[in-house]
Amino acid sequence: MIAPDLTTLELGFDVPAFPGMAESDILTPALIIDLDAFEDNVERMRSLCASHSVRHRAHAKMHRSVDVAKYQIEKGNAVGICCQKVSEAEVFVRAGFTDVMISNEVTDPARIDRLAKLARRARILVCVDDFANLDALSRSAQNHDVIIEALAEIDVGTGRCGVKTSCNAIDLGCAIAATPGLHFAGIQAYHGPAQHLIKYAERHAAIALAVETVKAACLGLQARGLSCDIIAGAGTGTAQFEAATGVYNEVQAGSYAFMDASYGAIEDEDGRSSTNFRHALFVLTSVMSVVGAGRAVCDAGLKSQSLDSGLPKVWGQETLDVLSCNDEHLMIADPDNTLKCNQRLRLIPGHCDPTCNLHDWYVCVRNGVVETLWPVSARGKSI
Amino acid sequence: MIAPDLTTLELGFDVPAFPGMAESDILTPALIIDLDAFEDNVERMRSLCASHSVRHRAHAKMHRSVDVAKYQIEKGNAVGICCQKVSEAEVFVRAGFTDVMISNEVTDPARIDRLAKLARRARILVCVDDFANLDALSRSAQNHDVIIEALAEIDVGTGRCGVKTSCNAIDLGCAIAATPGLHFAGIQAYHGPAQHLIKYAERHAAIALAVETVKAACLGLQARGLSCDIIAGAGTGTAQFEAATGVYNEVQAGSYAFMDASYGAIEDEDGRSSTNFRHALFVLTSVMSVVGAGRAVCDAGLKSQSLDSGLPKVWGQETLDVLSCNDEHLMIADPDNTLKCNQRLRLIPGHCDPTCNLHDWYVCVRNGVVETLWPVSARGKSI
Repeated sequence: MIAPDLTTLELGFDVPAFPGMAESDILTPALIIDLDAFEDNVERMRSLCASHSVRHRAHAKMHRSVDVAKYQIEKGNAVGICCQKVSEAEVFVRAGFTDVMISNEVTDPARIDRLAKLARRARILVCVDDFANLDALSRSAQNHDVIIEALAEIDVGTGRCGVKTSCNAIDLGCAIAATPGLHFAGIQAYHGPAQHLIKYAERHAAIALAVETVKAACLGLQARGLSCDIIAGAGTGTAQFEAATGVYNEVQAGSYAFMDASYGAIEDEDGRSSTNFRHALFVLTSVMSVVGAGRAVCDAGLKSQSLDSGLPKVWGQETLDVLSCNDEHLMIADPDNTLKCNQRLRLIPGHCDPTCNLHDWYVCVRNGVVETLWPVSARGKSI
Repeated sequence: MIAPDLTTLELGFDVPAFPGMAESDILTPALIIDLDAFEDNVERMRSLCASHSVRHRAHAKMHRSVDVAKYQIEKGNAVGICCQKVSEAEVFVRAGFTDVMISNEVTDPARIDRLAKLARRARILVCVDDFANLDALSRSAQNHDVIIEALAEIDVGTGRCGVKTSCNAIDLGCAIAATPGLHFAGIQAYHGPAQHLIKYAERHAAIALAVETVKAACLGLQARGLSCDIIAGAGTGTAQFEAATGVYNEVQAGSYAFMDASYGAIEDEDGRSSTNFRHALFVLTSVMSVVGAGRAVCDAGLKSQSLDSGLPKVWGQETLDVLSCNDEHLMIADPDNTLKCNQRLRLIPGHCDPTCNLHDWYVCVRNGVVETLWPVSARGKSI
């Protein structure tokens, strides 16, 4: 029986807002996108890549949103997207994306089979760092009568996946090219830790070093008769460097579209705390208790924001220090007791990617009014 | 067009396992419950509460699972459940639960309205720490023609919500009792930080101190003619102490059912690392790259486990040190290169609550075989 006043309870349908609602009425905690800032960020990345004549392949692992990725392609001129997981890529292929790179290794046979099925519908690229992986990829590609494009991944400083030398990358590239069902697509060389180095010069130096390895691999492959269609890497912290190398031709940045407190802390050439991108992502929270003198308790805890890169910051109210965060609560120092119960605050999350993955909806606002809602389409897709 | 071989891609339906599957075939990363250990834990909490003649109200914020909570009520003799959020409670009321406490304040008018609607279907209890909250609760209760049961919350050490003295609690209790639409149900006094104190004696002392405040509040309320049906608090780290006080009559523990690395580190009376509960929750991960000498890369990152209480531990393989964790990767030291690609490892998450909230499914295993799947029914419900 559905009661005449259809409620969330009866419908089992839960959205934090509706279009037209004021930002201050959004049910919290909610993940909000400031559309003006987001659109600016997409334009800035488009312009950066255009000015260096490199392609932009937007990293969808950050937002996991079909709507955000569509905007990055349509307005930001992205050539396609990156994902990190097969189940994530499935969401985007189902939504009509036709050029998807898994910027990661896929080694499990069941997942390789799913990857090959995706290649019936879209151009699918995947990274490889081990000869032992080629046979399984080849078999699945042939079983499903598809071509999987494979990149040799080089570890240029991340200390994670990837072969460790340019020589290994050359050998691996040749092996990919010789494997039925696979097409050698080029080199993946992402430097993770460089993204978050605070000093501009340190980030620049880290990428300069990475480029030497990548260049050596390209030359070696060329000597063996193989060209690299794609030489990919770069993130929000270093994209300007890779784009200017003349070696990398695809930039895989993700966080630039939303930004977070961690990327907000890195410095530009003049030592200012900026990367030229604006904060577009916030966790909207409400004050829920002010009975503790000098502090306020808010309703956005660990289940609404990831703390791996530190506590969030209160946007536009720099005097408010975030003290701690529990599962469902955030404590803010408020020495002058200025905060009122039910007041909304925008929090800049420490790290955007895992924060987005906690939510089902992006509430998109412009000038203080909800314009639309976008689902976090691939939330939880980590297989 | 649906291809004849219905796949995850076509169906858009994504489960990590099916009943009957071997644990080693589960698609990873996946959240698994060792059913034998889980059932043991529920029995141990039942026995602890029974031996002290206190009630157990299982904290469902930890697992957010209708199936887990049903088991805690049916086999663990829990009298009902706790939630922290209204949207979480809605899931359980929809599923038929009839005695639900929000062990938290609800101050936002829209949420108070939803809370009152829930009280048409179930006994609903909520915590209050501010006189200013009573009017809104009262109006919604009367609008929906329901009684909301309210507890006066005292901050006995958490430093979060709750009035700060027993005198305040007495005044607040009297105000609740005098408010139309509300029923004064008792006292909420949970000591969060005490749960994780490593030393048994320190946890014991923290609760002994909390009990004095609670006792003073109860006596004061009694002198004003008010009795406390519920005197509630306690978590996995201290439940044995509150249960033995003769003051608390409801234990709200949650993590005991699954356990995590953080609770695994606290010591019992003899200095052993144990709380008498077994590790029942694991993040199952696969090794996905072994090309870096001395280390293996696994496929469970930040989006599959919360790091707020530290890195996970590898279960049953104490020589394997977890080094670091990125969004989709976990790095493990493997100096002797013993790990093989695609090998499964069980990880004990640092903190169970926010880890469970990252997943859609619990894969329930017994003796290495998948027995059933349980949805994480209230995942993401944080409003």
